[in-house]
Amino acid sequence: MVPAMPSKPYLLYYWPSIQGRGEFVRLLLEDAGAPYVDVARQPPAEGGGVAAMLKLLEGAAPGALAPFGPPFLRHGNLVLAQTALILHWLAPRHGLVPKAEAARLHAHQLQLTVTDFLVEVHDTHHPIASSKYYQEQQPEAKRRAAEFLANRLPKYLGYFERVLRANGGKFLVGRGHSYVDGSLFQLVEGLRYAFPKAFRALEPKVPRTLALADRVAARPRLAAYLASGRRVPFNEHGLFRRYPELDAG
Amino acid sequence: MVPAMPSKPYLLYYWPSIQGRGEFVRLLLEDAGAPYVDVARQPPAEGGGVAAMLKLLEGAAPGALAPFGPPFLRHGNLVLAQTALILHWLAPRHGLVPKAEAARLHAHQLQLTVTDFLVEVHDTHHPIASSKYYQEQQPEAKRRAAEFLANRLPKYLGYFERVLRANGGKFLVGRGHSYVDGSLFQLVEGLRYAFPKAFRALEPKVPRTLALADRVAARPRLAAYLASGRRVPFNEHGLFRRYPELDAG
Repeated sequence: MVPAMPSKPYLLYYWPSIQGRGEFVRLLLEDAGAPYVDVARQPPAEGGGVAAMLKLLEGAAPGALAPFGPPFLRHGNLVLAQTALILHWLAPRHGLVPKAEAARLHAHQLQLTVTDFLVEVHDTHHPIASSKYYQEQQPEAKRRAAEFLANRLPKYLGYFERVLRANGGKFLVGRGHSYVDGSLFQLVEGLRYAFPKAFRALEPKVPRTLALADRVAARPRLAAYLASGRRVPFNEHGLFRRYPELDAG
Repeated sequence: MVPAMPSKPYLLYYWPSIQGRGEFVRLLLEDAGAPYVDVARQPPAEGGGVAAMLKLLEGAAPGALAPFGPPFLRHGNLVLAQTALILHWLAPRHGLVPKAEAARLHAHQLQLTVTDFLVEVHDTHHPIASSKYYQEQQPEAKRRAAEFLANRLPKYLGYFERVLRANGGKFLVGRGHSYVDGSLFQLVEGLRYAFPKAFRALEPKVPRTLALADRVAARPRLAAYLASGRRVPFNEHGLFRRYPELDAG
C-alpha cells in the first residue's frame, strides 16, 4: 500500500550544522528510506552549501512561492516550507500517516502543537531576539526558562501523554507508527539533552511517552540513522541547547 | 462551484472577549456567509459560555482528539484545532482558496507564516510568561518590542509584500481572493492598532499590502461584519495590544 519511491531524490534545504527544525524532516525521510539530498551539507562545487539555500530563499525558483525561512523541500516544481506542512505532505507518500482524512488532520494538528512547543523551547535561550547572542539576553533567559520548566514543559508533555493514553497508549494517531510519533521521539531527545535535570524529574509522569521514544529509536532505519554520521550532534547553536544555568536546580 | 452550505452550523470555540487567533476563523466564516455559532459568546443557559469551551478542552468529545487550546472548530464528529489547520480545512468548502493542490499548499504555508508572526507579536508584551501580567514583565517587553519593531516587523511585512508582488500584486495566492488575503488584512488591522507609529513609518514600503487590506475590508459580507457588534473591538487582553511605551518613539 506504500506508494512507489520517487524516481528523483527530494532536495532538503536546512542549516547544515544543527538539528533544529530540519531534523523533523530528516527523521521522516530516513524512516521512510526515501532518497534525499541534504543540499546545504553538500560541497559548494556540487551545487551545495549554505549559499545554495540562501539563493532559493531569495526567490530564485521560478514560479514557486519563496519560503520565509528554512527548512524547505524541493521536489520537481514544488518548493514547500514550514516543517509541519512538509511532513503533512510527505507522510502519505511514504505510508507514515494513516490514510483516513480525519487521522491525517489529527496528525497535522499534533505536529502544529509540536511547532508551537519548539518556539517556546527556542525562546528559553532567546527570549529577546534571535539576532542577538544568548549571552546578551541571559538574565531574561533565566527568567523565561524557569517559567518554561515550571509551567509550559509539564503542560505540553502532559498533553502528549494524555493523547497517547486516549489513543490506546502506543501511538499518537491511528493504530500504528506515524511521523508524529517520530516527532515526539525527537522532543524527548532534545529535552533530555537541553534540560537533563528537569526532564528526569518529569519522567515518572510520562511513561507512555518514554516507551514510545524507545520504540521509535529501535525502528531499523532510524536506529541506523541515529548511529550514523548523518545525525548532526546536538550543540549550542541549535534549538535545544544545554546551558546548565537554565536547567532545574 | 462553491459547495453547498452545511446544513448544521459550525461550532467555533474561542475566548469570547478578544479577537485573538479566533478572529482569523471568524473572518473566514463571515466572508463565506457560513452559519456558525460562536459558542463561548452564547449564554450558558443555552449551552454556551467559557465553561462549555473548557469542558471540550478537557477531552469531553468522545473519540475526538482533544485540542491543546482554543480556537477549535466542531462539525459533526470532527473537532479541529490550530488556527491555520482550521482555515486550511474550511476554505475549500467555501471557495475561499484555489482548488489546485499547489495553491492550497502555498496558502497554508503562508498562513503558517502568519502563525509564526502572531507568536512574535504576542511575545512583545509577554516575553517571559503568558501566565504573568504584562506589568510583571515590562522591562523585558520593552527590549523585545524594540527588537521586534526594528527587525522582525519589517522582515515579515516585507516578505508578504514581496509575495504579493511576485504574484501580480493583488492576491497572495492564485488569481482571486483567498482566506490568506483575509489574514493579511487582519495583520494590518492589528498592527495599526497596536503599533500605530511604527506601522505608519513602514506604510510607504508596503503599498500592495495596504491596497489589499482596503479591498478585503470592502468585501460586502466582511464590511457588514466589521460594522457589526459581532466584531469584538481590539483591547488590552488580546494578541494585539496598544501599549504606547512599546511603540516606536
